[in-house]
Amino acid sequence: MIDPLVDNLRIELPSWAFGNSGTRFKVFGTPGVPRNVHEKIADAATVHRLTGLAPTVALHIPWDAVDDYSALARYAEELGVRLGTINSNTFQDDVYKFGSLTHTDKAVRQQAIDHHLACIEVMHQTGSRDLKIWLADGTNYPGQGDIRGRQERLAESLSTIYQHIGAHQRMVLEYKFFEPAMYMTDVPDWGTAYAQVNALGDRAKVCLDTGHHAPGTNIEFIVAQLLRLGKLGSFDFNSRFYADDDLIVGAADPFQLFRIMFEVIRGGALDAGSDVALMLDQCHNVEAKIPGQIRSVLNVVEMTARALLVDRAALTAAQESGDVLGANQIMMDAFYTDVRPALAQWRTDRGLPADPIGAFAASGYQDTINAERTGGTQSSWGA
Amino acid sequence: MIDPLVDNLRIELPSWAFGNSGTRFKVFGTPGVPRNVHEKIADAATVHRLTGLAPTVALHIPWDAVDDYSALARYAEELGVRLGTINSNTFQDDVYKFGSLTHTDKAVRQQAIDHHLACIEVMHQTGSRDLKIWLADGTNYPGQGDIRGRQERLAESLSTIYQHIGAHQRMVLEYKFFEPAMYMTDVPDWGTAYAQVNALGDRAKVCLDTGHHAPGTNIEFIVAQLLRLGKLGSFDFNSRFYADDDLIVGAADPFQLFRIMFEVIRGGALDAGSDVALMLDQCHNVEAKIPGQIRSVLNVVEMTARALLVDRAALTAAQESGDVLGANQIMMDAFYTDVRPALAQWRTDRGLPADPIGAFAASGYQDTINAERTGGTQSSWGA
Amino acid sequence: MIDPLVDNLRIELPSWAFGNSGTRFKVFGTPGVPRNVHEKIADAATVHRLTGLAPTVALHIPWDAVDDYSALARYAEELGVRLGTINSNTFQDDVYKFGSLTHTDKAVRQQAIDHHLACIEVMHQTGSRDLKIWLADGTNYPGQGDIRGRQERLAESLSTIYQHIGAHQRMVLEYKFFEPAMYMTDVPDWGTAYAQVNALGDRAKVCLDTGHHAPGTNIEFIVAQLLRLGKLGSFDFNSRFYADDDLIVGAADPFQLFRIMFEVIRGGALDAGSDVALMLDQCHNVEAKIPGQIRSVLNVVEMTARALLVDRAALTAAQESGDVLGANQIMMDAFYTDVRPALAQWRTDRGLPADPIGAFAASGYQDTINAERTGGTQSSWGA
Amino acid sequence: MIDPLVDNLRIELPSWAFGNSGTRFKVFGTPGVPRNVHEKIADAATVHRLTGLAPTVALHIPWDAVDDYSALARYAEELGVRLGTINSNTFQDDVYKFGSLTHTDKAVRQQAIDHHLACIEVMHQTGSRDLKIWLADGTNYPGQGDIRGRQERLAESLSTIYQHIGAHQRMVLEYKFFEPAMYMTDVPDWGTAYAQVNALGDRAKVCLDTGHHAPGTNIEFIVAQLLRLGKLGSFDFNSRFYADDDLIVGAADPFQLFRIMFEVIRGGALDAGSDVALMLDQCHNVEAKIPGQIRSVLNVVEMTARALLVDRAALTAAQESGDVLGANQIMMDAFYTDVRPALAQWRTDRGLPADPIGAFAASGYQDTINAERTGGTQSSWGA
Repeated sequence: MIDPLVDNLRIELPSWAFGNSGTRFKVFGTPGVPRNVHEKIADAATVHRLTGLAPTVALHIPWDAVDDYSALARYAEELGVRLGTINSNTFQDDVYKFGSLTHTDKAVRQQAIDHHLACIEVMHQTGSRDLKIWLADGTNYPGQGDIRGRQERLAESLSTIYQHIGAHQRMVLEYKFFEPAMYMTDVPDWGTAYAQVNALGDRAKVCLDTGHHAPGTNIEFIVAQLLRLGKLGSFDFNSRFYADDDLIVGAADPFQLFRIMFEVIRGGALDAGSDVALMLDQCHNVEAKIPGQIRSVLNVVEMTARALLVDRAALTAAQESGDVLGANQIMMDAFYTDVRPALAQWRTDRGLPADPIGAFAASGYQDTINAERTGGTQSSWGA
Repeated sequence: MIDPLVDNLRIELPSWAFGNSGTRFKVFGTPGVPRNVHEKIADAATVHRLTGLAPTVALHIPWDAVDDYSALARYAEELGVRLGTINSNTFQDDVYKFGSLTHTDKAVRQQAIDHHLACIEVMHQTGSRDLKIWLADGTNYPGQGDIRGRQERLAESLSTIYQHIGAHQRMVLEYKFFEPAMYMTDVPDWGTAYAQVNALGDRAKVCLDTGHHAPGTNIEFIVAQLLRLGKLGSFDFNSRFYADDDLIVGAADPFQLFRIMFEVIRGGALDAGSDVALMLDQCHNVEAKIPGQIRSVLNVVEMTARALLVDRAALTAAQESGDVLGANQIMMDAFYTDVRPALAQWRTDRGLPADPIGAFAASGYQDTINAERTGGTQSSWGA
Repeated sequence: MIDPLVDNLRIELPSWAFGNSGTRFKVFGTPGVPRNVHEKIADAATVHRLTGLAPTVALHIPWDAVDDYSALARYAEELGVRLGTINSNTFQDDVYKFGSLTHTDKAVRQQAIDHHLACIEVMHQTGSRDLKIWLADGTNYPGQGDIRGRQERLAESLSTIYQHIGAHQRMVLEYKFFEPAMYMTDVPDWGTAYAQVNALGDRAKVCLDTGHHAPGTNIEFIVAQLLRLGKLGSFDFNSRFYADDDLIVGAADPFQLFRIMFEVIRGGALDAGSDVALMLDQCHNVEAKIPGQIRSVLNVVEMTARALLVDRAALTAAQESGDVLGANQIMMDAFYTDVRPALAQWRTDRGLPADPIGAFAASGYQDTINAERTGGTQSSWGA
Repeated sequence: MIDPLVDNLRIELPSWAFGNSGTRFKVFGTPGVPRNVHEKIADAATVHRLTGLAPTVALHIPWDAVDDYSALARYAEELGVRLGTINSNTFQDDVYKFGSLTHTDKAVRQQAIDHHLACIEVMHQTGSRDLKIWLADGTNYPGQGDIRGRQERLAESLSTIYQHIGAHQRMVLEYKFFEPAMYMTDVPDWGTAYAQVNALGDRAKVCLDTGHHAPGTNIEFIVAQLLRLGKLGSFDFNSRFYADDDLIVGAADPFQLFRIMFEVIRGGALDAGSDVALMLDQCHNVEAKIPGQIRSVLNVVEMTARALLVDRAALTAAQESGDVLGANQIMMDAFYTDVRPALAQWRTDRGLPADPIGAFAASGYQDTINAERTGGTQSSWGA
């Protein structure tokens, strides 16, 4: 019952999801939280060991900066995972208070560009394919910035960075509706990200974070559109009820995740050879972090397996005959089918635990890290 | 105090704003409502006579269909206005229940294409420059349509129509967040409209309706972006609190209209030679229609005049020095300045009534049409 | 596996769902649509015959006005159903253009009050328990009405009507975020409906329409709150992606419907003796109407059955121990369980078709009504 | 031209607005930021000295905790201001991770209750009238908490606190749509706050924070409704484009602030003897803090003065005659009138600087505090 395409599924884990995170009001700490990138990778490798679907770990520079990235890559491989996307950060230095790649001051723009060139350097050493750029650039008040001028400077800065992207590397530009900027964000929607990367070249793509849209936005439409345009580079998976809540993917609206995966499949992004990257980007503020990541991976695979159950031929026939209810029912029949037992078997067949959440609880891993990871400073967004 | 650029302002009136309109619950009729396109044009000409800013009238086909469009154009000119944008309609024939340019049935698509070719024929006779396409195409339920396939068919249909657009004509594609489709709209955002017209050529542009966005969308950003990309064809002006409310432009949020006009000016769209068209698109459900249009024209010119008061040099200096409050205050100072007396003088200087609303009330025009327009059927969206 | 509480489920069907409906742009007709209330009741009875869960039909006055309501009640009973909630209409007469129960003109208010008294008269004859009041009252522009004064007049009008509500009858006040009013709605939220009915007495309650909230509103919270306050009178079930889309309940977000039904159960509203009414209120614009109602009934029962699977004791334990992921998993396990086979058996056990949608298709009912219902005028919102 | 009611205006400043604040991504520091409550009060007193409209300072406990509150009150009075509302904090201790007044654990609830009793103790010493309760309580995932049970525990906790409120003191309960909780907030809307305080007594009121609503919410309606119900205790003024942006009040939508002040006036809340408190609650993330507060005070007084210009008699006449455009124009005429020169004169008449922003810049205050406030830790949300 589980479609073979499920075997193509690869979900990248973000190193920062294992650290502490929170809201502007409070960051609650948790026992066992990693104090450095090595411990984050160890946690990520644990998720992969239990699910078989999370073979790579995304890094965030400078949070995960080390002296020797080749050594870090080897360390990861020893644990059974590889290093993935490199995420830049131009939002936490004081110099970026009024922007980074869009700043009016050429020196600040250059500093932000140089940071990205350093990230590309890291990619050479880690063997990473993707440089992901999410910008906090924007303004809080009308008049604070020149919308048009900022967009021009963004184009120029991205172009400079893009020229340094290697032949087998990609630049992925993420858009976000709002936050931390509250009046105007410089890359607020997929249209802007598309227009910007379209001006650069084939190796510049768009990153779609499922939490970065206006209320009511039909996200699967954007997935279909970007795939059609050949510009969907990657996903940041999470879920939201209100803003960029960064909750566990599929937690807020599993049917939406199902529809997104349906368009991913429909657009060929799960086919062999597809270069669309599926990554998690979540903040586990109040829930346990490693089980939170396991749950996310399971949600993605469950909705993928359900989406693969859609009888595409019957669906097309219903669509072409104007059978609205019939077509909808075909979708819903797939969504409502309980694939969990079949996926448990799928895991067992591959030597994985049938119940990864239970297996983690039984493993004692959490107790071990709670005991071992004392002293030092727990990782958080700032480190 | 009124900047000379105000003299470049031209606001196109929609013929249908003079007819009855309403919600799905009820359309309330009003005395004096036109029964045909000639009476609509007469009302529009009245608005222009009183404001001096509304020299053209947009037509909607087939609502405004006549046998002889050249004669209609002459009729308009005799009244002191010209015929403007031609708006197509592929949403009220039963055959379009499941789509028009995106329909799975080639015959339906061809019918919709043919309608647009007929509209281009009308344009030849009226001397209109712009064919505006707003599509109601979309679906109400997941699975009802194939998102990707519909987009491909849309591209093909638009391409066919575009090939018939004359050398001095333009195709303008309007996007809309939702309604009448409630799950998926085929042109839901500026990104889609941009991607579609970008594939066609220089004479294909985007139409931005100010009421057609998700909650919270920064519209002036899109204005700035489309102007930067050279793809802003025209505006449909109106305002909204919730959905596509089609209220009088500037009524819901005058400061937003001010910011939009600021970006229009910033992007050169009010300069001599600009081809960006400013049109109203409103539904006067409960308010008087002709004064409603006059009020809209006045709101646009008032916010334009305020936006032209922004001290651009001082603004740039404040922006470059990171003076957030200072930059914002420069914007607000312009917005808070009462330009109404100066605009009254501006009108007097041009032989126009200082108070167009009062002049209309005093003119007796409404009484005359109330008395004359009896018998026949009042125009509404359906006719 | 199907909890016995499912046997308490009763879903009221709205007569108007069998008529034509649409958007402000277009109402598409369909073959077989009823031309009068008798045909609507026949269609509703068909839904009940196939599902066993829809024993009552709500009427809308004057759309369903007849001379002899007792005879109509007997007619319904002969078909196996009963007449339910009476819905008033103060939004389609010209006199209500600027309000009904809130109007500044006492004569208009009295007309609206009298209409409700006439509805109570109907209730006496039909044996209906509930008078449901949904008001279109509101304004489109700031200043158009006096918010406070309108609220006072509303309170006075409702009080007058309430005095005529029989000892075994109830008044149910529905709130709605917006539409058809676009700036201010006189009963826009549950707080207003609650404050108004709270001032009246025990037999005044709130009606919660699942499509009548601001984007992002947590509806199950309101369900829990109104049940706690003893003021949840009834539901209007439907679903939405954007505004008041009136789609099939559960179609947009089945997980939301599950959570709502969980709170319904949690709050005792499915217990024997509960007086909370569950009604559908949908507009089948493009889909087949009778199957659309069947699908809605099935969606409600499916989500009810799933919600009843939640292990409440385990859930409480997880909540009290701060086990966020564990508590959530208990909810999700219930939601993800496929209850459809068990519900098919539940139906078979009760002499109902296992597959009501399939049974309807096989019954030939649609062909029969398509053939029989020719001539006359199809029912729509206006009739 | 400035209505005498303006003299009744009193705007309370929040001590925390003078400290550093930011988003979850980054808090940017600024020179001169206070390091303790005394310096915050000094800054607040500066705002009052320049505007004459900000005579009180709200404190936040424990951020502003001191040993001797009577001494603090005297210190404030020496600087020309008084201590105002006491704001409690049950969202930054680790024990509150899963709730405070709603927590399942009685000991945690008691700790939160005790904190409020301590706040009441502070009020006795400072002479403050209002205890303001904003709760971060809520859940991030469906199932995490029992919505109904949490509401019951909230009612019980509030009742306990309320019993300790002095005869001349008030409890003010603030609602918030979301954040920091992302699925369910325990006091998410005015209806909940109203139902809760209504159960307590006359000295329990609702606090309306203008940034705490769902997108599209008509805030002036809630103002009118709460005033009508006698339950509007206080405002937290700020503005928003997206979520709880906490921007300068009036910055995002000055017309909305005008409409709110119109309802404040309409409902008598600016009359002598009114007990409705107007407070600012803003986070100056990127702008200068003291000028930011001055700007906010000026925005409130400017919109108040404009709202007082509305010709109420003419408005009523237009409303009663169904003159939609006329009634709206009366509102807009007031809004569009530039009251700034008259307010400058109003200030001069009272011995205040005509231009408070300019006077602040000229005063050298900022340079002085930049120089003096070195060493120590700048105040922020956490201290």
